[in-house]
Amino acid sequence: MSDYTNSTLMIYNSLSGKKEEFKPIQTPNVGMYVCGPTVYSNVHLGNCRTFLSFDNVVRYLKFIGYNVRYVRNITDAGHLVDDAEEGEDKISKKARLEKLEPMEIVQKYTLDFHHVLRLFNALPPNIEPTATGHIIEQIEMVKQIIHNGFAYEVNGSVYFDVKKYNEKGYNYGELSGRNIDDLIAGSRALDGQSEKKNPQDFALWKKASPAHIMRWSSPWGEGFPGWHLECSAMGTKYLGEQFDIHGGGMDLKFPHHECEIAQGKACNGIEPVNYWMHANMLTLNGKKMSKSTGNTLLPHELFSGENNILGKAYSPMVVRFFMLQAHYRSILDFSAEALNAAEKGFHKLMNAKKIINQLQYKKGTVSESENNRINQLIQDCYTNMNDDFNTPKTMAVLFEMVNKINKLNTSDNMDISEEVFSKMKTTFNGFIEDVFGLQSEEQADDSIVKGVLNLLIELRTEAKNNKNYALSDKIRDELNTLGVQLKDSKEGTTFSIN
Amino acid sequence: MSDYTNSTLMIYNSLSGKKEEFKPIQTPNVGMYVCGPTVYSNVHLGNCRTFLSFDNVVRYLKFIGYNVRYVRNITDAGHLVDDAEEGEDKISKKARLEKLEPMEIVQKYTLDFHHVLRLFNALPPNIEPTATGHIIEQIEMVKQIIHNGFAYEVNGSVYFDVKKYNEKGYNYGELSGRNIDDLIAGSRALDGQSEKKNPQDFALWKKASPAHIMRWSSPWGEGFPGWHLECSAMGTKYLGEQFDIHGGGMDLKFPHHECEIAQGKACNGIEPVNYWMHANMLTLNGKKMSKSTGNTLLPHELFSGENNILGKAYSPMVVRFFMLQAHYRSILDFSAEALNAAEKGFHKLMNAKKIINQLQYKKGTVSESENNRINQLIQDCYTNMNDDFNTPKTMAVLFEMVNKINKLNTSDNMDISEEVFSKMKTTFNGFIEDVFGLQSEEQADDSIVKGVLNLLIELRTEAKNNKNYALSDKIRDELNTLGVQLKDSKEGTTFSIN
Repeated sequence: MSDYTNSTLMIYNSLSGKKEEFKPIQTPNVGMYVCGPTVYSNVHLGNCRTFLSFDNVVRYLKFIGYNVRYVRNITDAGHLVDDAEEGEDKISKKARLEKLEPMEIVQKYTLDFHHVLRLFNALPPNIEPTATGHIIEQIEMVKQIIHNGFAYEVNGSVYFDVKKYNEKGYNYGELSGRNIDDLIAGSRALDGQSEKKNPQDFALWKKASPAHIMRWSSPWGEGFPGWHLECSAMGTKYLGEQFDIHGGGMDLKFPHHECEIAQGKACNGIEPVNYWMHANMLTLNGKKMSKSTGNTLLPHELFSGENNILGKAYSPMVVRFFMLQAHYRSILDFSAEALNAAEKGFHKLMNAKKIINQLQYKKGTVSESENNRINQLIQDCYTNMNDDFNTPKTMAVLFEMVNKINKLNTSDNMDISEEVFSKMKTTFNGFIEDVFGLQSEEQADDSIVKGVLNLLIELRTEAKNNKNYALSDKIRDELNTLGVQLKDSKEGTTFSIN
Repeated sequence: MSDYTNSTLMIYNSLSGKKEEFKPIQTPNVGMYVCGPTVYSNVHLGNCRTFLSFDNVVRYLKFIGYNVRYVRNITDAGHLVDDAEEGEDKISKKARLEKLEPMEIVQKYTLDFHHVLRLFNALPPNIEPTATGHIIEQIEMVKQIIHNGFAYEVNGSVYFDVKKYNEKGYNYGELSGRNIDDLIAGSRALDGQSEKKNPQDFALWKKASPAHIMRWSSPWGEGFPGWHLECSAMGTKYLGEQFDIHGGGMDLKFPHHECEIAQGKACNGIEPVNYWMHANMLTLNGKKMSKSTGNTLLPHELFSGENNILGKAYSPMVVRFFMLQAHYRSILDFSAEALNAAEKGFHKLMNAKKIINQLQYKKGTVSESENNRINQLIQDCYTNMNDDFNTPKTMAVLFEMVNKINKLNTSDNMDISEEVFSKMKTTFNGFIEDVFGLQSEEQADDSIVKGVLNLLIELRTEAKNNKNYALSDKIRDELNTLGVQLKDSKEGTTFSIN
């Protein structure tokens, strides 16, 4: 691991409710699973925040020397409307509405998802398994859970027996903090409509009604897997019966992740995940995002400015920077004010990055205390990230470096040693690019175009002032041929590009 | 369908060896399946040619009004080394060599494949199914083929019985033109090593050896599907037991597509595909591409110019244009000479496109014969594409339009009617953008940068000639600040951008 990681990486484990020292099962390898999107609609910003939070986790683990196998799935079957136990499959329903084959829906929204995450510069996972691609593995898991006595079949469906699971000493509810025994004791008698023994039981396999499009043959007849099962099956297949980190949005804690723990234990008799991590949600202008109230924003509406909520466009990099300013476990509120501030901050940060990469070391009188201060800042980047990936605190440290860089830039000589200068540069670049995934958003050419055009406008104004109209007309005409229009006004000359 | 499609779309059917009128099973819907890549290495140029050929087919079908469901698979299991019946799975072997989980290999090269096809502006398929995602469907198909008496199980593997298939009146060999009965009669006695009844038999399901990583449970024990089976299973699932068009590279005709026909007929008793299309191969400097002789080129080597074969970079759009200049059933040879010519041609074409989109109709004396000539060109675009997607002939027609456009541009008035002018514009744009998928490759800014910089260099040279060194130095210094270096030499001044 890195020189500066004298502090220990601590991760807040949702299961214990505490920050715990991170000890991978097989250092330096880390197995990490993140619940991916259900691809039945365009990915929304809340999802993006979750995926970017875990992108930072993966990036930091790699940065400090871990070899991460990062698995993030695509849910392309089995996720029922309203996350309920009954009802239509989300993808099938959308297929019916859009009159497409379910897998056309899957393809359409998987492409959208990948496109948006590429814009955000998120690293692709090492493996991106799909639920439909692992039906056999899910069936095998159901068979094992039945064999171990924790599930029962009714009319072609298989349910997990929560009561039995708790009777055997396990604790369904341990992750979400719900006391399921109380719930079971207090629940109303079943109305006879349900096949389940208890309302808390959840489906491992559902019988397909004649109208259900997505269906596979199984030992219990034609059906489809329960939503919670895919992550257990794919996590086990690619990371083992027990692995290091499982991440997802806060809303997946119950029932999805609670069920995953139960399935893992019931199938393999072992704690499936050592560190459970949950990313908090996004609000928009202080309110929960919601399609029904119109208080919602899709990534492309944010990037294009075509929305009534924020009124202008923000680049994916500004949005990524903005998200880093909140800790992943805190609620983050999107507002025009906050994003405008982030836009300024982002440009300030990237400008300092440009400066330090062009700056030559200038020998001066080295101040030991200043050397120590910079060394401390360097170490603080790691210390803050080691504190449960505290990106806002790390960002604050980077901004202290920004001040130092701007000062060094205007000084005739430097008060830190060449070694410390070089270390600061490496750390500053590394945290911005590798850990935070921030890229310069300006096309190099774009700033050149502006600069060069402004120079030409200046030369033309001079020519006009000198009554050299041949030259001033020549500049205007030649720019015109290139598709650049000059516009003279009282305030001066501006340009527009066709 | 379109106004101009008076001619009928004819498709060369590899199965009949003739051009046949295209009659979809359910107009205006077209079901089309194209064999996708085996994702165990970076996609090579020959594959790209195949995928771009079928991209043009899909684009043209859509252009003339068909509603295409385009399925292109990802082979992520079952394709054995050397396309043989024995040996290691291509992906597993690569996984072993790169010390990765097979599905990490799949992800790595699927991302590369998607990236390259995006650069080429290929449309994504409507459904992109994977072999591992359809194990159950493949098992069901094997069961049905066994049930129908065309396959047999030996030691946990299942083979297709080619002899039995031919005895029942079918004709294994009909696509590739091989006489299998002769082959069977003439083949040497089996050496006892093989489980197959006849050497021509092919695997539907293979027993997994203990070392084989990719394995699934089946009625015949743990194993994996035969390579040919996935396309039959996925084609049937998403397009039906019989569909319109099946495409692939010429090298897949035998055994892959021959086996697909046999599997389809043996399983469903029906001709699985109505039109078989095969794209021809690429050569490089007149010779077959081959890794062992070094006569090979990857897309990124072509785009970056980092290769010893062609010596310079060609943009994806120039390469796409180049490929359009050969018919998909002809061999296409890559050479620096041919690509340089294509580069010029591409720019000439796109320049005319820019011109016609900026050109206003200028009233003049309309010549009826000129009107007729342009109308004929418009119709010829369709006629040529209707002739088995003859892209080079269509391109030649577009270049006749280029000449006309350039002439109209310099004339004071136009000799064609406004209606014909407008139709030509629509057709010209439509074929370039929608049918041929060609995009302007120059970033608007890029050409502006070049133009504006050259203008500044000119002004600086004039200033120097007039001994106005204050101005010439100012231009140099201000450009320097923008990261643009000027370099003076005997031949004049050039610039480089940092």
